[in-house]
Amino acid sequence: MRSNLVFLLLISSSILFSQDVGKMSEDYISENGVQILNDFKELLSIPNVAFDLKNINKNGEHIISELEKRGVETKLLRMVGTPPIVYGYLPVKKAKRTLAFYVHYDGQPVDKTKWTNDPWQPTYYSKAIFEGGEPIDFPSKSSDIDPNNRIYARAAGDDKAPIISILSALDLIKENKLKITSNLVFFFEGQEEAGSRQLREYLEDNKELIDQIDLWMFCDGPVHQSRKPQLVFGVRGVTGMEITVYGPNRPLHSGHYGNWAPVPGQMLSDLISSMKDEKGNIIIDGFYDDVEPLSESEKLALQNVPEIDSQLKSELGVNTTEGSGSYYERLLLPTLTIRGLSSGNTGKLARNVIPATATASIGIRLVKGCDPEKQKDLVEAHIKKQGYHIVREEPDQETRLKYPKIAFITRDSGYPAARTSMDTPVVQSVINRTKEVIGEDLILLPTLGGSLPLYLFTDVLQKPAIIVPIANHDNNQHAADENLRVENLWYGIKLMSALMTIQK
Amino acid sequence: MRSNLVFLLLISSSILFSQDVGKMSEDYISENGVQILNDFKELLSIPNVAFDLKNINKNGEHIISELEKRGVETKLLRMVGTPPIVYGYLPVKKAKRTLAFYVHYDGQPVDKTKWTNDPWQPTYYSKAIFEGGEPIDFPSKSSDIDPNNRIYARAAGDDKAPIISILSALDLIKENKLKITSNLVFFFEGQEEAGSRQLREYLEDNKELIDQIDLWMFCDGPVHQSRKPQLVFGVRGVTGMEITVYGPNRPLHSGHYGNWAPVPGQMLSDLISSMKDEKGNIIIDGFYDDVEPLSESEKLALQNVPEIDSQLKSELGVNTTEGSGSYYERLLLPTLTIRGLSSGNTGKLARNVIPATATASIGIRLVKGCDPEKQKDLVEAHIKKQGYHIVREEPDQETRLKYPKIAFITRDSGYPAARTSMDTPVVQSVINRTKEVIGEDLILLPTLGGSLPLYLFTDVLQKPAIIVPIANHDNNQHAADENLRVENLWYGIKLMSALMTIQK
Repeated sequence: MRSNLVFLLLISSSILFSQDVGKMSEDYISENGVQILNDFKELLSIPNVAFDLKNINKNGEHIISELEKRGVETKLLRMVGTPPIVYGYLPVKKAKRTLAFYVHYDGQPVDKTKWTNDPWQPTYYSKAIFEGGEPIDFPSKSSDIDPNNRIYARAAGDDKAPIISILSALDLIKENKLKITSNLVFFFEGQEEAGSRQLREYLEDNKELIDQIDLWMFCDGPVHQSRKPQLVFGVRGVTGMEITVYGPNRPLHSGHYGNWAPVPGQMLSDLISSMKDEKGNIIIDGFYDDVEPLSESEKLALQNVPEIDSQLKSELGVNTTEGSGSYYERLLLPTLTIRGLSSGNTGKLARNVIPATATASIGIRLVKGCDPEKQKDLVEAHIKKQGYHIVREEPDQETRLKYPKIAFITRDSGYPAARTSMDTPVVQSVINRTKEVIGEDLILLPTLGGSLPLYLFTDVLQKPAIIVPIANHDNNQHAADENLRVENLWYGIKLMSALMTIQK
Repeated sequence: MRSNLVFLLLISSSILFSQDVGKMSEDYISENGVQILNDFKELLSIPNVAFDLKNINKNGEHIISELEKRGVETKLLRMVGTPPIVYGYLPVKKAKRTLAFYVHYDGQPVDKTKWTNDPWQPTYYSKAIFEGGEPIDFPSKSSDIDPNNRIYARAAGDDKAPIISILSALDLIKENKLKITSNLVFFFEGQEEAGSRQLREYLEDNKELIDQIDLWMFCDGPVHQSRKPQLVFGVRGVTGMEITVYGPNRPLHSGHYGNWAPVPGQMLSDLISSMKDEKGNIIIDGFYDDVEPLSESEKLALQNVPEIDSQLKSELGVNTTEGSGSYYERLLLPTLTIRGLSSGNTGKLARNVIPATATASIGIRLVKGCDPEKQKDLVEAHIKKQGYHIVREEPDQETRLKYPKIAFITRDSGYPAARTSMDTPVVQSVINRTKEVIGEDLILLPTLGGSLPLYLFTDVLQKPAIIVPIANHDNNQHAADENLRVENLWYGIKLMSALMTIQK
């Protein structure tokens, strides 16, 4: 029914055509919405915790068969004892590029006692539970579907929604006889929530399957909390360290020795305090030196990101934030966060002692340009500058007597940040296509605050990689009562259809 | 046998006489040592944890009967559900003064798994276990007793040794027909190790029994660690507070919010660090203002206390101590000790979060002149000066949004220090008498570092109070394998005899 129109538009301007992909998907959804929701329900009904290998394999096999139904060449990439990777390939003639869609089909483990319903018995709600939504039957006719309805189930938002979006987009394209313009690779991982432990190995072992990819698109995470669509171009890296400082070699009576024995909690406070200024800016020499500055495109993009500071402050009960700058500006700097402090006891267990040690656990987030090892080296150099002798194991008596201040440091492993330039031609094509179909107010976010091993793609594979989220920001990702707003599923179908049919 | 000699000496100079009390006690011990050790063993065999009321009463009754055998008027002061106080009174004609001997007959609770022998089956050792001592039979003849022998049992050092010393001194005095020159009060408490909770009430309820006392002597604690005898004239007071500072109203993802959300561990470190300078001197306004300076006698006494800093440093694995000054000088200042720190988690439990709170437990020791409430007020004033809004309960959302920095403070109760002037006439008599019998190198210590509610006597009863210790410093007080060195028991008998027969 739509093919005549498509034909007309194919010979018309690409913008006209693009607008029509939007319209086509709206029509497609209004005709097939009930079926799409049922397909989603079926996919969400298969338990998908990574270590539950029996069920995780069922997920993989279900998805493989859905891809095959749609003419995709598939392969289940297997490594003994690990969740398989669903690999799909859809080559087209005269392809302008190869685009990869990364999705993960596993979900976070669940604590069923915290869920309103069984996490793997998808439940349909009139609207969000926190808005007063009620459970209702899955719709039996399209006119019953309200875009504010929500589907509650583990992985509804993180990260099975893009799978159904992709499958539906393939159906829509077929039905409308649209032309897929790029070779498409589908790379669906089964252990992202378990730390993607074998991801690097899978990539290395299957080089020939992924070598031709021009752009990796990570269909994961939520859209902006203003509910506006967004594309994201980077993530922060992550590492950390733990520092223990020493007082006497055993806890001492705070009366007999108070004012005389060194107090490790005091020493540690002095040390931590020396790392930041009053505003919360890090004053460790060189800590910001390697930060790669924003490009002009990134600066411009940042200016157009809606401000969220006041909303966040009020939600989180915060009067004043760290450092100077807006939330999004602050994501562009490496962090140093006291994620834990311990010495002696507090509360009811507090005793009148001078504890023997005090420990700080420090989390470090990295931005593009910063090396995880070098940033830790800088922190250590700072600690030395404060007069500390650094040791790699518990100090013995001789060491204790030799040095006035001793810090026992353990270093976390970690990985660097990644940020793909918005100016890369293939990325430009994606940005432009998305704007054509979604609208000009598409948010372009240089980086997320959180960390993903995106560097495996940008730095190891040396390919551009961006994040293409579709879920609602309030999808309760990782928590109980995870859900997807139906409108976001519709958005996902529209977006995937657009990206598969990029004109330029 | 000795009475003739005593008679001669009574009409001779008091110094000659005093030296002879020393000699008399040596003779007495060499004749009666076996019996004294057996009496001690019997007393130590009665379990004496304060909450074990059945056994604690047995202790009280045993001691009462021992006092009565020696002609002391006794009274068991009782309060329902609490360990009784053994009160004894020995009036003499033409008494120059009334001296009270305070001892506590309860001991610390025990963890039997940590003891080499049963804590209430006194075991005799050739020397200290840590010196390689072996268990041997209790001696059957005096010549078998070595002053280096030790008796292992709960309360051997803390605090039943003075009881046997007092009983033996009374026997010695009787046998030698010495003249007791002061009215003697014996005040033996049964719940010191449980916090002396009803002590104040006992004192108030029995005013008429204690009103005439001129000097309270606390026979408790160890002698100097050089093994030299010492008298102690004061203790530090004690109080404390707990401070919690606030970041966001729930733990946040350190990636999504790192660099933006305030980090409570950082804020707390800044706050703690602002309380002391680099050397460890407290820089809270007014914290040292009320410290009562040492008198000339106290200064002189302090100069004669043997230095113990190098020994302590090497024992405790400390290269550099807090502040400036020797161990004994540092005891003369109020303290501020971080006895506990907590925020988020460290070690294996560390997670990539910005914790919602950070808490410090602060111990404060006081010296003479400092008021427990005022010192806490000073700390609070300092916290306010750092920009904090102080709350007395968990802050609500409105408060959180209103103030950039919030500190939730709880204040411990506490009590002040006490220090009795060495120049008080009755105290001078005790000092002089002890020197006569023990020797000129008696250590006079203005204050201990630890705390006892001595203020109940000095400030509430308004009577001088001093500490007269006899136990060895390495008696494992409060710990497993508590013990008394036999030489210290002999010292106790000699000292008690001397104090009961002060000439001037």
